[in-house]
Amino acid sequence: MTREQMKTTLESYRKRIESFLQTCLKDDSIPERLQSAMEYSLFAGGKRIRPILCLVWAELLSGSREHALGFACSLECIHTYSLVHDDLPAMDDDDLRRGQPSNHIKYGQALAILAGDGLLTEAFSLMLSHDRHPERTLQAAAEVARAAGPRGMVGGQVLDILMTGKGQGDLEMLKSMHSLKTGALLRASCLSGAMLAGADHADLSLADQYGTAIGLAFQIADDILDITGEEQAIGKPVGSDESRGKLTYPSLLGLDESKALGFRMVEQATAALEKYSGPQSQFLADLARYIMERTT
Amino acid sequence: MTREQMKTTLESYRKRIESFLQTCLKDDSIPERLQSAMEYSLFAGGKRIRPILCLVWAELLSGSREHALGFACSLECIHTYSLVHDDLPAMDDDDLRRGQPSNHIKYGQALAILAGDGLLTEAFSLMLSHDRHPERTLQAAAEVARAAGPRGMVGGQVLDILMTGKGQGDLEMLKSMHSLKTGALLRASCLSGAMLAGADHADLSLADQYGTAIGLAFQIADDILDITGEEQAIGKPVGSDESRGKLTYPSLLGLDESKALGFRMVEQATAALEKYSGPQSQFLADLARYIMERTT
Repeated sequence: MTREQMKTTLESYRKRIESFLQTCLKDDSIPERLQSAMEYSLFAGGKRIRPILCLVWAELLSGSREHALGFACSLECIHTYSLVHDDLPAMDDDDLRRGQPSNHIKYGQALAILAGDGLLTEAFSLMLSHDRHPERTLQAAAEVARAAGPRGMVGGQVLDILMTGKGQGDLEMLKSMHSLKTGALLRASCLSGAMLAGADHADLSLADQYGTAIGLAFQIADDILDITGEEQAIGKPVGSDESRGKLTYPSLLGLDESKALGFRMVEQATAALEKYSGPQSQFLADLARYIMERTT
Repeated sequence: MTREQMKTTLESYRKRIESFLQTCLKDDSIPERLQSAMEYSLFAGGKRIRPILCLVWAELLSGSREHALGFACSLECIHTYSLVHDDLPAMDDDDLRRGQPSNHIKYGQALAILAGDGLLTEAFSLMLSHDRHPERTLQAAAEVARAAGPRGMVGGQVLDILMTGKGQGDLEMLKSMHSLKTGALLRASCLSGAMLAGADHADLSLADQYGTAIGLAFQIADDILDITGEEQAIGKPVGSDESRGKLTYPSLLGLDESKALGFRMVEQATAALEKYSGPQSQFLADLARYIMERTT
């Protein structure tokens, strides 16, 4: 798949996901102001990588694709909630997100906290209304809950806050922080998709390997783009990690070694797909490569 | 059941619930500081009414009791998360909760936001690890997700914030705000317990009637105690609602009419139990009365 073909495919997934998300919050029983604050961040231009990973893993293992759509979209609600809360003044204190005012700048802190809470709970409503195979839904939702919770994303954000600005830490600390903060949900996106398709132990282990590797590659690419990217493309000032004393892969390993580590992760992700064939398998391999190739 | 017997029974339920909750967060994979902040609010002396309602409705309809314990405890995690976030400076800005420093006073705002997020996600982990009857667990967890989300508690808190300090509003606005902010989770506590026990449509409708009535009685009693209670017993300064311009039942209806409305709700709750017999049914009827009798 060429870069252009990858962009077209991602765009087509993105549109399906956004059409579904558009319907979720259109509900008179949600106070208007809250609905508006939730939608503001949900439609701020995300790449929808997490729902795409969930959908494609479900497709890869089951052959069908529509069933997992609602569940997959819940992952975007969780990702969005985490961005809204991370941007708050008490946390990373970011006024801009993807080039636009952050939720709390636009709606005030109280609404931003509640929009985040609303997106997180709405995510579970979406997951639990997946009405096929209750056992599989339960297994997949439990995986996501663990990944989003104190043993996953929330724990990772705590470690990030405790580490930031101290200007110290080593590669192991950085890896374990990211494996929780961003890795856990990316991994759970792959695993939950596989679970919804009724994956056996061997398939789950491969989804785990792919998801763990792509999660790390994704973070390394983000850290590199923070240095080498263009402000417009990354939606925040270049060098913002360094200026706030964030520990990153390039700051610990240098640019070249970071890229090498990222590409080793791409190889690990690709190796997890050897058993499979067909367009989904090809797409997942190309996606892993695409993530790192943005940095070159 | 006399008041003393009720207190003893509540105390025995409370101990079972707290023993279970004590084990939930003892986990090396949760960062220590986060675990500490979550436990600080989880063990700050709650009455555990929500898990008790869930447990007793499950017992009433199934005859057994232990199965619902983990699920029931998730309701306390959700209740606690909502208190931690409500107390934040951007929200109600409360420095004290149950006579102790609020979570953000003790741990700082960032940790308090994350402790709330952690308790909310941990609640879903607990619910979804309930391993009997996947269909029932899914139905009950979906009910709780809806009650906790933008169509329930989160929506109610938004309405509360929009109303507070404006010194205006009518009984309908107050009722709809409370039916979301506090009513929805109390109702879902009863409904989810009934669902876990495999309740049919008729039973669910009675659990709904009981839960809705007790939710309103509970709020009315709280509003009355804010005026007539003793600071030590209610854990906050007497008259704090009035001083911050909160709309309450006594401020709209007067004390006597508020009490009369509360006792009508006790009757409605009791009427929902007529079909049942045995100790659980008696306990639920007595609990409804006990809630309002605290105000006399």
